[in-house]
Amino acid sequence: MKKIKAAVLGCTGMVGQQFIRLLDDHPYFELSCLTASPHSRGKRCGETTANGDQPALGEKTASLVIRETTAAAVIQSGARVVFSALPASISGELEMELRKNGLFIFSNASSHRMDALVPLLIPEVNSAHLELAWAQLREFSGLIITNSNCSVAGLALALKPLTAFAVQALTVTTFQAVSGAGQRGVAAWDIMGNVIPHIANEEEKIASETKKILGTLAGKQIRDHGLEIYPSCSRVPVKEGHLQSVSVEFAAPVSASEIATALSGFSAEPQQMALPTAPRRPIIVLDAPDRPQPALDAWAGEPTRARGMAVTLGRLRCRGKRCSFFLLVHNTVRGAAGGCVLNAELALKKRMLGGN
Amino acid sequence: MKKIKAAVLGCTGMVGQQFIRLLDDHPYFELSCLTASPHSRGKRCGETTANGDQPALGEKTASLVIRETTAAAVIQSGARVVFSALPASISGELEMELRKNGLFIFSNASSHRMDALVPLLIPEVNSAHLELAWAQLREFSGLIITNSNCSVAGLALALKPLTAFAVQALTVTTFQAVSGAGQRGVAAWDIMGNVIPHIANEEEKIASETKKILGTLAGKQIRDHGLEIYPSCSRVPVKEGHLQSVSVEFAAPVSASEIATALSGFSAEPQQMALPTAPRRPIIVLDAPDRPQPALDAWAGEPTRARGMAVTLGRLRCRGKRCSFFLLVHNTVRGAAGGCVLNAELALKKRMLGGN
Amino acid sequence: MKKIKAAVLGCTGMVGQQFIRLLDDHPYFELSCLTASPHSRGKRCGETTANGDQPALGEKTASLVIRETTAAAVIQSGARVVFSALPASISGELEMELRKNGLFIFSNASSHRMDALVPLLIPEVNSAHLELAWAQLREFSGLIITNSNCSVAGLALALKPLTAFAVQALTVTTFQAVSGAGQRGVAAWDIMGNVIPHIANEEEKIASETKKILGTLAGKQIRDHGLEIYPSCSRVPVKEGHLQSVSVEFAAPVSASEIATALSGFSAEPQQMALPTAPRRPIIVLDAPDRPQPALDAWAGEPTRARGMAVTLGRLRCRGKRCSFFLLVHNTVRGAAGGCVLNAELALKKRMLGGN
Amino acid sequence: MKKIKAAVLGCTGMVGQQFIRLLDDHPYFELSCLTASPHSRGKRCGETTANGDQPALGEKTASLVIRETTAAAVIQSGARVVFSALPASISGELEMELRKNGLFIFSNASSHRMDALVPLLIPEVNSAHLELAWAQLREFSGLIITNSNCSVAGLALALKPLTAFAVQALTVTTFQAVSGAGQRGVAAWDIMGNVIPHIANEEEKIASETKKILGTLAGKQIRDHGLEIYPSCSRVPVKEGHLQSVSVEFAAPVSASEIATALSGFSAEPQQMALPTAPRRPIIVLDAPDRPQPALDAWAGEPTRARGMAVTLGRLRCRGKRCSFFLLVHNTVRGAAGGCVLNAELALKKRMLGGN
Repeated sequence: MKKIKAAVLGCTGMVGQQFIRLLDDHPYFELSCLTASPHSRGKRCGETTANGDQPALGEKTASLVIRETTAAAVIQSGARVVFSALPASISGELEMELRKNGLFIFSNASSHRMDALVPLLIPEVNSAHLELAWAQLREFSGLIITNSNCSVAGLALALKPLTAFAVQALTVTTFQAVSGAGQRGVAAWDIMGNVIPHIANEEEKIASETKKILGTLAGKQIRDHGLEIYPSCSRVPVKEGHLQSVSVEFAAPVSASEIATALSGFSAEPQQMALPTAPRRPIIVLDAPDRPQPALDAWAGEPTRARGMAVTLGRLRCRGKRCSFFLLVHNTVRGAAGGCVLNAELALKKRMLGGN
Repeated sequence: MKKIKAAVLGCTGMVGQQFIRLLDDHPYFELSCLTASPHSRGKRCGETTANGDQPALGEKTASLVIRETTAAAVIQSGARVVFSALPASISGELEMELRKNGLFIFSNASSHRMDALVPLLIPEVNSAHLELAWAQLREFSGLIITNSNCSVAGLALALKPLTAFAVQALTVTTFQAVSGAGQRGVAAWDIMGNVIPHIANEEEKIASETKKILGTLAGKQIRDHGLEIYPSCSRVPVKEGHLQSVSVEFAAPVSASEIATALSGFSAEPQQMALPTAPRRPIIVLDAPDRPQPALDAWAGEPTRARGMAVTLGRLRCRGKRCSFFLLVHNTVRGAAGGCVLNAELALKKRMLGGN
Repeated sequence: MKKIKAAVLGCTGMVGQQFIRLLDDHPYFELSCLTASPHSRGKRCGETTANGDQPALGEKTASLVIRETTAAAVIQSGARVVFSALPASISGELEMELRKNGLFIFSNASSHRMDALVPLLIPEVNSAHLELAWAQLREFSGLIITNSNCSVAGLALALKPLTAFAVQALTVTTFQAVSGAGQRGVAAWDIMGNVIPHIANEEEKIASETKKILGTLAGKQIRDHGLEIYPSCSRVPVKEGHLQSVSVEFAAPVSASEIATALSGFSAEPQQMALPTAPRRPIIVLDAPDRPQPALDAWAGEPTRARGMAVTLGRLRCRGKRCSFFLLVHNTVRGAAGGCVLNAELALKKRMLGGN
Repeated sequence: MKKIKAAVLGCTGMVGQQFIRLLDDHPYFELSCLTASPHSRGKRCGETTANGDQPALGEKTASLVIRETTAAAVIQSGARVVFSALPASISGELEMELRKNGLFIFSNASSHRMDALVPLLIPEVNSAHLELAWAQLREFSGLIITNSNCSVAGLALALKPLTAFAVQALTVTTFQAVSGAGQRGVAAWDIMGNVIPHIANEEEKIASETKKILGTLAGKQIRDHGLEIYPSCSRVPVKEGHLQSVSVEFAAPVSASEIATALSGFSAEPQQMALPTAPRRPIIVLDAPDRPQPALDAWAGEPTRARGMAVTLGRLRCRGKRCSFFLLVHNTVRGAAGGCVLNAELALKKRMLGGN
């Protein structure tokens, strides 16, 4: 298979850097265009990355020269697939312009998540929603597919196997890592030794996006899932990994063992297709009494290419109709760049990205 | 009024040090005996305290010599009131022996919290339960009164004014500070940049203690409150202040304004009696969108002697029968030493501590 | 004595807030004007402060309305003494304009520190340099007096008593707190669990300012002290308190006991005059083997008004001509706002601030 | 080549776990015996490791059953090479007993570091000292070779190429990670948001070990290097990586460029022999103005097997005879387990480990 040329927009931020890491030597895609703000224009990719304990980038990727983020730059580069880590303030229009030019955009930005024809996609959860993207293709020749909010990426995945048990309501408290706000988004003075019980618009996104993702396609529209969601969000002094304390109310009593079995045994199309970035087990249920922990479990997922793509879950306790647990999702991998890459892999295998 | 001689058992730990700070120059009590493990025997109090940004101790307190923790040492000291910050492993028997000797024990240990005749006391919440202590006095001439678990101290206080609205169920996720486990209880390697979603026995205590405290005295027994409690506890890299994400389900719809009014307007006997360690407003509702925060609000409470004794609460949101909010309690002050001292002040004013 | 009206410029930042705390109910000065960027204009002081565990501000201070920072606003307010916590980018011209208008500026900004006629003042170290300010008064009727860089404020103070021993060279490594860069100056992602071995221009300031402060006034010029300084600066995940590892080389062998005696016994004019913000002991030598520590010692200093104004010093070791120790200075108090306030108190007592 | 059977003593601690990671699938050694305290006896290796973001262990290693640490257990296992991560309290005698039984011990414990016949070995620095181990072999058939203190492992390596320039004196301030004290060695309460300017005996070890390692073998004795060392040690809230602020005084002026060239260009026997755990470049000089940083550079070193084995160094500044820089060493890899493994690889290639 010939690789498809790909661009990363907003390549110097936290999510942009994860895109580069995931696309370096990717079996389907070939990085051919990186863009960022004018400040980084002309730098080589290798100069702007400092991933700490991550393996070094390949030479070809490291030597890519960063362009300024414009539609023209992307189009001229010959990239067909575009991964967008742009801030919401500029992603809205730019992504539409690229779609009009027949490009396939996989976006981490929130601008188009609630658009009627845009799938808010988690491949293991709602690949049926890709139907919406075919409608886009007919209209524009291009398409926009978004991933969800970083917390929702883990939450909706864990809920999917539970929907078989008639979920009625969901109370969730998040412990979100500072990387979720971007490299300079949270000041050390504010968060060191502290917890901030507020993240702007996050609770609204958790409610609306989760309902859309778990919703059903009826004709050309998605009908939201009817569960009630009560989210409370906070920022904690953790670098990577959004932990969530979840309590689910079912229509009827459930047992911990049947819930655990449903979660552990869950797999879906990405696993069956063995997509490169798909973890063999999308949900890993841990038995240890004090897991999952961001420091130990954020990077869960096998094979190596799928590190950070598995959701870990532990402390499962059920009583009557209630079931409580903690779950952990790597916010910049499964919750951002990795989610988009998996979306693109699925779309490619579904033959939505042109003649491949 | 002549001051009553008081002892602090376990004076070198985190709670013991708060006891000393609160009792230094107290209007009702006079520190006359400090005990600790043999390791600290013979040291002067001033050598073992390092309270950082707290004001220095008075000279008399600083010069007290630490004795080894034994019943005999306490009895010989002439102390009549005993504040116990002992570990649960030794508090059980020692406190009973001291009670048999006619002493009045105010304990932060969990050993006797669920004893039938021991009030699990939060003065603003269940002073009616002091009736149980009169029964102890008749039997032993002494008494044991315990404070609650550090998380419950804030949670039950905030729930008290809400019981007027027919609380049915409670989902709570805690973010607990490392000081709750003692000075060496949490290793830096384990908690730095991390969250640990487990604290041994804490969820059980939150359920059982909250129901007992909110329960009603029927004859000589407490009938537990009937609300359902779903707790999930975690440790976070914070030094002081237990934050809690609380979601309450009522029997009927409530509005945020009536709930806020009930919380802000709440006061009880300690406020009416103007007890020295009682905060003028026991529950402070904050309007700012990102409060309470451990770093900013843990020490809330006026006057100066009541710093750390007020519970702060914010982000109040109601929808239908559900009401969610965050609350914060200073775990070693209101949740430990300060709670005990307030208990003793109330008991003294109720003339339970002898001829004063 | 009638209080002199005072303004704080840049009142919402970390240093500005310390100014407000220190000037609230000050015996010499009366806060009458607060300024900040347009963003805060019109807010009341009490709305913008969140000092955590600090005591609450007085009502009068809390109700002051913030104005936009302009020379006109300050002049119209009737303030005679101006405390400047402005960023260096705007302090330079504004402070000169205010001086031309006969105001007395005590500035924490670095703009004028190396001006020929501007004393870079630490009252315990170089009050003789105030001579330069008289020259300013003759020329402008007003004056500018600056405090030093926050690290230098502690270092030069500790060096002063050592100059009696013929200091030849100084090797210093700093561990600087994040508050030194302002509330949003250091990103959590960058510093959590990390050390950053670089602070822009800090090493240059440590060398040049220390030499000027320890220099001698010769005619109308300061002749720098001749010691060699080898500074290395770093940022650490600490909120308040700059720790410094110092190694001093003397011209001849010294003993630890004579050095300790010189440091502990040191006092100067501010102590003799009992200035309100002067700590009784400006340098506190700690015997414990693991002190000073930012978490325990940053707020050292008595009386209460002088908290954070004492430099603590420990681990004194001498061998031959070398003497090494750690010292700690509260960077936003002694190293910023508190230093300026002490400067103003000294200037007032020296009758430099008009008819008082 | 047939692999040599190897044991790891003290396999559950921080250093023990690094040994296991490094020896899993090692080309020269085959893990056949793991020991720990009685508490872990009978557990499988895979149950006791939780390395966070490290790759999973091979199945064979993960399934090894942990034995109690006794000489008999090690001897019976058939292991010929022993890697010791024992605490100093028990390593002294046990290692001697194993040597008497003809085993080859590579120890991270400090017990035998200063023994006359025990090389304190850093393969790139003083492989000539292996001569001492031949003397041990003649006497005991076995040998003990120790690595150095974790700070010295980086410091002595960086100093080696500088010895060509006549080093006279060295002032060093360390910023040491909490993992250096073991998993429970530093309490969160003590270090969060703080720096502790003291580590017991560390300064003494830095002085004595550095001089021994840089010393020269004269007959059968090592003559210490004559440089003066002024160390000051501190603990910082960092998990892995000891940063050091170093200032070197030479006998004559040096230039930054000649020093940088000497450091960057340095390589030695391990590189020439391409030992498996040897980094291609043992000292990496970074140009960026704010490096090395523990969070970004602790794991430096290529190839993959040598991650954490390179020392990074930056901010090189020279003036006259002084040269200052920061260096970083991974304390549990190059400074502990990795150092020992490299020692064993060198000894094996020098044909000191029997018939291989």
